[in-house]
Amino acid sequence: MKNYIETEPQLKAIEVKDKFWSFYQELIRDVVLPYQEQILKDEIPGAEKSGAIRNLRIAAGQEAGEFYGQVFQDSDVSKWLEAVSYVSNMEGTGRLEESARQVIHLMELAQEDDGYLNTYFQLKEPEHKWQNLLECHELYCAGHLIEAAVADYEMSGRSTFLNLAMRLADLIDSRFGPGKVRGIPGHEEIELALLRLWRVTKEQRYFDLAGYFLEERGTDPNYFAQEKSRKAWMDPAERNYTQNHRPIREQDTAEGHAVRAMYLYTAMADLAAWTADEELKAACVRLWKNVTEKRMYITGGVGSGAKGETFTVDYDLPNDRAYAETCAAVGLVFWARKMLGLDLSGKYADVMERALYNGVLGGMGRDGRHFFYVNPLEVVPGISGEVPGYEHVRPVRPKWYACACCPPNIARLLASLGKYAWGESRGCVYSHLYLGGVFHSLQNGISWKTVTDYPWEGRIQYEVCDHEKREKSALAVRIPGWCSSYSLLVNGRECTEEYEVKDGYVSIIREWTKGDTVSLHLCMEVKRIYANLCVREDAGCTALTRGPLVYCLEEADNGKRQNTLLLPAGSEIMERQKSDELLGDYIGLEAAGLRLQGDSEALYSETPPRAGGTMIYAVPYFLWGNRTAGEMRVWIRET
Amino acid sequence: MKNYIETEPQLKAIEVKDKFWSFYQELIRDVVLPYQEQILKDEIPGAEKSGAIRNLRIAAGQEAGEFYGQVFQDSDVSKWLEAVSYVSNMEGTGRLEESARQVIHLMELAQEDDGYLNTYFQLKEPEHKWQNLLECHELYCAGHLIEAAVADYEMSGRSTFLNLAMRLADLIDSRFGPGKVRGIPGHEEIELALLRLWRVTKEQRYFDLAGYFLEERGTDPNYFAQEKSRKAWMDPAERNYTQNHRPIREQDTAEGHAVRAMYLYTAMADLAAWTADEELKAACVRLWKNVTEKRMYITGGVGSGAKGETFTVDYDLPNDRAYAETCAAVGLVFWARKMLGLDLSGKYADVMERALYNGVLGGMGRDGRHFFYVNPLEVVPGISGEVPGYEHVRPVRPKWYACACCPPNIARLLASLGKYAWGESRGCVYSHLYLGGVFHSLQNGISWKTVTDYPWEGRIQYEVCDHEKREKSALAVRIPGWCSSYSLLVNGRECTEEYEVKDGYVSIIREWTKGDTVSLHLCMEVKRIYANLCVREDAGCTALTRGPLVYCLEEADNGKRQNTLLLPAGSEIMERQKSDELLGDYIGLEAAGLRLQGDSEALYSETPPRAGGTMIYAVPYFLWGNRTAGEMRVWIRET
Repeated sequence: MKNYIETEPQLKAIEVKDKFWSFYQELIRDVVLPYQEQILKDEIPGAEKSGAIRNLRIAAGQEAGEFYGQVFQDSDVSKWLEAVSYVSNMEGTGRLEESARQVIHLMELAQEDDGYLNTYFQLKEPEHKWQNLLECHELYCAGHLIEAAVADYEMSGRSTFLNLAMRLADLIDSRFGPGKVRGIPGHEEIELALLRLWRVTKEQRYFDLAGYFLEERGTDPNYFAQEKSRKAWMDPAERNYTQNHRPIREQDTAEGHAVRAMYLYTAMADLAAWTADEELKAACVRLWKNVTEKRMYITGGVGSGAKGETFTVDYDLPNDRAYAETCAAVGLVFWARKMLGLDLSGKYADVMERALYNGVLGGMGRDGRHFFYVNPLEVVPGISGEVPGYEHVRPVRPKWYACACCPPNIARLLASLGKYAWGESRGCVYSHLYLGGVFHSLQNGISWKTVTDYPWEGRIQYEVCDHEKREKSALAVRIPGWCSSYSLLVNGRECTEEYEVKDGYVSIIREWTKGDTVSLHLCMEVKRIYANLCVREDAGCTALTRGPLVYCLEEADNGKRQNTLLLPAGSEIMERQKSDELLGDYIGLEAAGLRLQGDSEALYSETPPRAGGTMIYAVPYFLWGNRTAGEMRVWIRET
Repeated sequence: MKNYIETEPQLKAIEVKDKFWSFYQELIRDVVLPYQEQILKDEIPGAEKSGAIRNLRIAAGQEAGEFYGQVFQDSDVSKWLEAVSYVSNMEGTGRLEESARQVIHLMELAQEDDGYLNTYFQLKEPEHKWQNLLECHELYCAGHLIEAAVADYEMSGRSTFLNLAMRLADLIDSRFGPGKVRGIPGHEEIELALLRLWRVTKEQRYFDLAGYFLEERGTDPNYFAQEKSRKAWMDPAERNYTQNHRPIREQDTAEGHAVRAMYLYTAMADLAAWTADEELKAACVRLWKNVTEKRMYITGGVGSGAKGETFTVDYDLPNDRAYAETCAAVGLVFWARKMLGLDLSGKYADVMERALYNGVLGGMGRDGRHFFYVNPLEVVPGISGEVPGYEHVRPVRPKWYACACCPPNIARLLASLGKYAWGESRGCVYSHLYLGGVFHSLQNGISWKTVTDYPWEGRIQYEVCDHEKREKSALAVRIPGWCSSYSLLVNGRECTEEYEVKDGYVSIIREWTKGDTVSLHLCMEVKRIYANLCVREDAGCTALTRGPLVYCLEEADNGKRQNTLLLPAGSEIMERQKSDELLGDYIGLEAAGLRLQGDSEALYSETPPRAGGTMIYAVPYFLWGNRTAGEMRVWIRET
């Protein structure tokens, strides 16, 4: 098997029927998206006002009033529309789709003759269009609109929304680019969106415009310093913040606002894959190494700095003051997916899985109505969210935010999970993640049915349930980096045919026929993980993992002062199959540990604390915060 | 011995000749005060401009120009003048005193006919006097001027400066108080100063005005909200910040800006002592317990929050983001001294000693030219001073600050050390701290000569070198709370006469004659100290102390990544007598420890770090930062 550039499959070709993920996809369909719709329409009492649909109605001339919300309020609508498109594959989405059609119709009415559509500028500053790209998210909103339109076209086959998006993209293209007006977006997003638009329309100008926005970034003179910015809350001289400090090919550390960085790197990797540009690929690989080897939490959270929601310095990963925005973890999944297209290596899928099962999933409550923006690895009520320096760390998920970027980002990612689980190229189907259901590979003409109880169990059964023609092709299944031992059977026996193990994937090459099975069995042992000692906060500590899941301790199980718990190095970690009303069915971990107990009430004393026996109980990190508010911590002191 | 209300002695009655402290007092005289004078006169190239003397010259009509600096710039001059007064007891201070006279003369010229003197308002906003007490430090500056004038009068006997201060105090008294204009200072200071002024002048109006400012604080309606504040950078509704949240008698937790709080509590304790007001005393005791039992670093640093330089919540004592302003530790010494006047208990002197030898002394470099404003208990170059949230933590002492409150505060405290070391009442002399030299007790007519090599050695020898009359009196010597065993000999023998051990003091009552000696021997063993487990950051760690000194680890001795050092519980700590060019003669501590070493370069791996043997070397905290910039930490992980 060569290092094909594999690509994401069409989502329409994937049916999800997965014990673990179907719960979340149905939650997205039944709760999250209807709830978000009500939010967007200002129908939830007590939640932050959105105004997003109303802004559109005003712009469409259906209502009088003023713009409400952030400069990027429109993007909430687009992300919702994108997610609705993805779930349209499922049963029972008629009402949501109908609502989406109405919103798209509103957008048509609101769109200006030249293609312009951005309610903030239309309603509030029509005379200032395209003049504050640094702060006003105009191109960012356009990017989200384009992504939603592409998703709609791919899922529904209808072209109304796509045409609307093309009119907007053409307007942008008519303005920006070589020989036209110079410009780059303050918040990257349009680059990856234009590449998506190019893939469905094959219009080269979109590809070129994406390339322009990417390559113009970081060049001198500093574009943002030239803008006549009127709001001026951002300092254009802080070029790191917007990844504008160097041309993208010269960047080698992840800087600035983490979500922006993730969206930029996603587009860079996508462009590098399509152009086979080795220099650009090298920049992507350097940035990947910097992020995943020096600046990423064990949960896949990135952007440790609360001030500016930014990357800080290597190994600076404070647990109790982590920012680790949900959107940044979502963005890391996007980026990892594109890196796989650039270079088929399991390390990218490992990080994609890590971020997905931990950093992303932990961002949403199991009720689908509460969301974290910030994802700490340690929470202490009374400090978190209260003491200066910890204001951003919430011990419980709020209902919604004035800046509501994260909830719809989780929705659109989880609703389109199939694109991340599967990949295909002419001659190969890739199973990057383990997702129950059926994948009809259009490129190979084979339909693979997958059955699994992952991540609780390590068995994944793949079965050919349909195939169009008899010809050799490969199934490449990922062997996770965390997995120390696995077995793989083809039709119940050791594979004796063509077979390759490389870069974290096992590829079985044969002429598949209906009923053929591939059985992968990953050993799901519990592990103790240690951080690099350069991570100050984690030295002397261990984190528990099982398969892709990172575990954490919660006050509900372990009481207060979890910083006084010690896990002896030799203590056996036992699995506990649990069923909990709030947490669902899951596997908990239990071990005999110690708890430091002080005999002195004094602030400082000569009396060392005693270590008494106690049981330590851990739950998957993604489930934290679904019970009573209390302490939480991932890293446990080890003795 | 009864619980006399003892009082601070006259500084003129004390000659300091102490191996440890004379170095610092001479440093103050020979370096710190001449250097500060040059700073105040803008004569040091490269240091922050002060403008303080120039402001006075402009106000005095000797120079044209505009006010420069902070609203409280005048206070730098007053604190310097106060310190110069204190060192005038020493040899070789003629030039400094002459400079001080010239500055006082400038102040006379600058003072307005009605007594007003504040160069900020005189030069910049003459129409806005007394209208922004919240932000503009007008009463605060007056307080420092009064303190300096009292010191000058006490040390020199001249009344020029005192009269100037009284004219200003009388102006304030004519304006504020019951039946006059309502007002309280945003930054407390004038209260304690007015009580000092009352003590030397015996003018009841100053005592009453101090009481007014104290008791009016925290009452409704919120005075600051009523002010027509024009600068308006502070929110008057944040009443905690200025200890204005409740009447002082009802306060029970230390809130807001730590230096303000210390100055307030100092005045409260002083007032309570003079009035024998049990309710006010109870408030002081509650606040004392809150600060010293829940909100104080082991170094005596207080005010852990960088945002606003404030107290935060109980047990919130982060080491690497500590604020612990030098001025707040100085203020804690002031307060502790007044608590001793309220209730003679060694616990107050213990905290006074802790803050003095650690939190205060660490604020100044051994060269007398570099100062810390912020006193962290852990420093990591690359993070400290650089990463957001750590900007305030400097790994090396800067030369000077735009806000230069700390350096002259250290100077005036160390220059007046005798007042803190000794106390007296009719019938008793109190040795709160151990300070070599001679103390002539005016109240008892006895002169005590003290010889000691404290804090390096625990022997303190007291000898009667003069006495006026034959009558019984007591010498009360403090037995520190940290001292587990001590011996006390009178004239070389076990004391068999009248003798009392109470609240941390041993009192020997006899008819003293010339040549009588009292020999105290404190066992100076090295101790491991443990923080209350509620202090999250310190659980599982130990701090090393010897006598009053807290120790710390520095990179110069232990290399980088000191967070990976482990001190086994059984490891013996050995004393090392050292002589170092930069650190002087001192006792270091050494112990066999372990260092965690990682075999993996990976950010996260399954390989636990190995613990290899290493020596751990600690230096006194007050000496940190005098060598190459590097890591520092007080709390050491214990196994």
